[in-house]
Amino acid sequence: MDMDLNSDLGESFGAWRMGDDATMLEVVTSANVACGFHAGDPTGILNTLRAAASRGVVVGAHVGYPDLVGFGRRNMDPSSAELVADVVYQIGALQGLATAAGTQVRYVKPHGALYNTIAYDKRQASDVIEGILAIDPSLVLMGLAGTPVLQWAQERGLATVAEAFADRAYTPEGSLVSRREKAAVLHDPEIVGQRMVRLVETGKIQAIDGSLIALQADSICVHGDSPGAVAMAQQVRQQLEAAGVSLKSFVAGSSL
Amino acid sequence: MDMDLNSDLGESFGAWRMGDDATMLEVVTSANVACGFHAGDPTGILNTLRAAASRGVVVGAHVGYPDLVGFGRRNMDPSSAELVADVVYQIGALQGLATAAGTQVRYVKPHGALYNTIAYDKRQASDVIEGILAIDPSLVLMGLAGTPVLQWAQERGLATVAEAFADRAYTPEGSLVSRREKAAVLHDPEIVGQRMVRLVETGKIQAIDGSLIALQADSICVHGDSPGAVAMAQQVRQQLEAAGVSLKSFVAGSSL
Amino acid sequence: MDMDLNSDLGESFGAWRMGDDATMLEVVTSANVACGFHAGDPTGILNTLRAAASRGVVVGAHVGYPDLVGFGRRNMDPSSAELVADVVYQIGALQGLATAAGTQVRYVKPHGALYNTIAYDKRQASDVIEGILAIDPSLVLMGLAGTPVLQWAQERGLATVAEAFADRAYTPEGSLVSRREKAAVLHDPEIVGQRMVRLVETGKIQAIDGSLIALQADSICVHGDSPGAVAMAQQVRQQLEAAGVSLKSFVAGSSL
Amino acid sequence: MDMDLNSDLGESFGAWRMGDDATMLEVVTSANVACGFHAGDPTGILNTLRAAASRGVVVGAHVGYPDLVGFGRRNMDPSSAELVADVVYQIGALQGLATAAGTQVRYVKPHGALYNTIAYDKRQASDVIEGILAIDPSLVLMGLAGTPVLQWAQERGLATVAEAFADRAYTPEGSLVSRREKAAVLHDPEIVGQRMVRLVETGKIQAIDGSLIALQADSICVHGDSPGAVAMAQQVRQQLEAAGVSLKSFVAGSSL
Repeated sequence: MDMDLNSDLGESFGAWRMGDDATMLEVVTSANVACGFHAGDPTGILNTLRAAASRGVVVGAHVGYPDLVGFGRRNMDPSSAELVADVVYQIGALQGLATAAGTQVRYVKPHGALYNTIAYDKRQASDVIEGILAIDPSLVLMGLAGTPVLQWAQERGLATVAEAFADRAYTPEGSLVSRREKAAVLHDPEIVGQRMVRLVETGKIQAIDGSLIALQADSICVHGDSPGAVAMAQQVRQQLEAAGVSLKSFVAGSSL
Repeated sequence: MDMDLNSDLGESFGAWRMGDDATMLEVVTSANVACGFHAGDPTGILNTLRAAASRGVVVGAHVGYPDLVGFGRRNMDPSSAELVADVVYQIGALQGLATAAGTQVRYVKPHGALYNTIAYDKRQASDVIEGILAIDPSLVLMGLAGTPVLQWAQERGLATVAEAFADRAYTPEGSLVSRREKAAVLHDPEIVGQRMVRLVETGKIQAIDGSLIALQADSICVHGDSPGAVAMAQQVRQQLEAAGVSLKSFVAGSSL
Repeated sequence: MDMDLNSDLGESFGAWRMGDDATMLEVVTSANVACGFHAGDPTGILNTLRAAASRGVVVGAHVGYPDLVGFGRRNMDPSSAELVADVVYQIGALQGLATAAGTQVRYVKPHGALYNTIAYDKRQASDVIEGILAIDPSLVLMGLAGTPVLQWAQERGLATVAEAFADRAYTPEGSLVSRREKAAVLHDPEIVGQRMVRLVETGKIQAIDGSLIALQADSICVHGDSPGAVAMAQQVRQQLEAAGVSLKSFVAGSSL
Repeated sequence: MDMDLNSDLGESFGAWRMGDDATMLEVVTSANVACGFHAGDPTGILNTLRAAASRGVVVGAHVGYPDLVGFGRRNMDPSSAELVADVVYQIGALQGLATAAGTQVRYVKPHGALYNTIAYDKRQASDVIEGILAIDPSLVLMGLAGTPVLQWAQERGLATVAEAFADRAYTPEGSLVSRREKAAVLHDPEIVGQRMVRLVETGKIQAIDGSLIALQADSICVHGDSPGAVAMAQQVRQQLEAAGVSLKSFVAGSSL
């Protein structure tokens, strides 16, 4: 049994720190690295990429809306021309920094409001897909497990990776419980670890009503933006390893 | 006799227009394309790159300080780590957009205050050179003819292109007359054209005191940010062609 | 008969010019001045405010979403806390610059996507109204004639000004024809001028189906972002004056 | 004996936290609040202003260069027109938010590179002074004790406050030891507290060579950007209070 663990990294900006990239790079096998639009400045991104390269962690472009003050979490409605170009620009910038760091960009995971929007919105999803195809069709698109964006990407010829969230509750229909609900986020590292072990072993996750639902996931997202989040990520990794799961990137032969 | 003509393009931003890229792409053989730090947004840059690609104009990265409101014309003192990463980020972003446009970045010409600073400031020059080497050592650095940055780059293994300015007056020592002087900028297209023909034919340019000085130039910079500037650029091209000069990029076999 | 003429000014940014503020300040009686979020930098805004002050043109704060590259024309969904604070920040900044220019801010007209959104969206409208009340309840809110935002503002105690657009077509229901429709924008200055004279004289405007509809307008918006737009604005002013309309600000005794 | 304690606050930005404003507002009597150019977004600034207002802490405008990624710590060379307008814009924005928070801006303390530059550079100092005069001549300018900017401001009619740094070493000539020197920053809260007590009691501070030098200071700057910094600030306050120093703002009758 294999599984990929991914996390959002490179999200510091200038004098402002966010997350503990060094520690998280010991936990994950894939690093979604900010590209400067929602977070990340060139200097900090380059440092994170060097750290990822030195640990053999696979790098993805964490592209977002151009909204630094809103951290890319606010909905926007760019035109298709704008969104395509914004995606290409961000991937290209990260590719350049990755080259300088001795690694390369292997996948794309949109961030925040853009991530949520393209899961279901075909227009913006198509723009993101077109942007990826325009710069490098060999890039893999990482998206929310169970949402149509994955199929839309496959129809255009992109390889995709379906992602589950370790600390999020799921509805019986297989979608994420809205963050507006109290029970949207799970806080017990032990329980979260057990859920992920079951997900890898059985392809099923317990929904918020207690039912077991099928969830096809190629990667598990863990967070590192607080000491508690880092501890949970470490717990997920440990429980998966204890269960005999081999943690490795979804990129074939990704020794880089 | 061959000569390259270059101009700064892609400098519009969002709703704001600057220059007449379509017309200038009929005049020049090399396009210094803004990368988003001093000017240019992804959508507009991509449009300019597509236009350059369709006309076979060679593309360079016009990297600048991160100062949109100051158009990259104000001195800044980034640290070496910052400047290296900023250069890599901008080149990478432009490479990505160039790929999407069906072309590629072949050279780097710093912009504005960064251009002037690295002509003589070894620390910042070294940072820019290091940035270029880190992302693609085959990129050519375009710099001010007669300034030490060209030698510093060559010592690090970069190919360089020395640039003369069509509409600027020169001191007897071969440097540009400061813009603070009245006579710094030439306004008569006929005279400017004649100067450039002589420069190509003889390797000499008339300095502000009337003396003829040697100036080794591989490329001539013309501007397109006003109707008058476009007309002057066209005049320079016409006079060079009338004198039998072949206008072509300094990039060997640059059919792209 | 009195009427106010307003226009969006101060929308240059750094090296980028937009509009012909000096000419438009000879045409209008109210200047909606950009505050730096969708357009305008402090230096340029201050210059426009000084020009407005010297001509006795009343100044309003043209507040927008924080989206420079999108010129504030893209929908965003800031939280209420964000939108309230963004409105206060922009008004305050403009008040400061207005003081330095020897004038003062008398009204607020939201810009672009924010303008369109608050016309009908009560949540964002309430945020804008709360922001205005928090900094200066004597400020007047300018909004689209016939839309609920004006009543919402009045219910909170703000004075309001209803605005008609000189060059826009209206539906029989009194709303603007969408810009997606071909006939959305009128281009003949003579006809536009006649429409505005009738609007002032009769309170009616001809809708796109030929019917005459009532439209209560306290101010007419003219544009100045192209030579054609300036010419149309001048034509509207001339025809109104020829019809005996006194062009003056809606601000009582606004000799400033 | 009275003394003012000031600290830089409101320096979070969007999703990024910096400092512990709530705790520091229990320590200081004056809050230098960021204005959005080097740090601070409207929402966060407003929150800090509300907290300052509720505790009766006097508010100053912490104006900086427009360099978010560099946190205003990098030298820039804005023109005089730009710097004057930038200062007015920032003060005005903060005044607006202060009004919304039920308080008002009483002084101006430039930040980072701008602070250091105007201490000795007459051109930029004059620009900052002109900006303050243009928006509100009753604002007090806070500057580095012993530097000419204070006299330049007084000559133009501004009241000034001279500031000492609690945790910085001083040269025998009374200037700050450069941060490039190892001993530039003091780390022992007990020693720092003792130095500040002596400064208030005797007007003297021990220089790095052991000599006692005169330093006329109206305010002491403490930092809050790390847990250690907060603890040192608390220690300074406690030792001053234990020595009978009354901690209060330099603003006369500043009960607000």
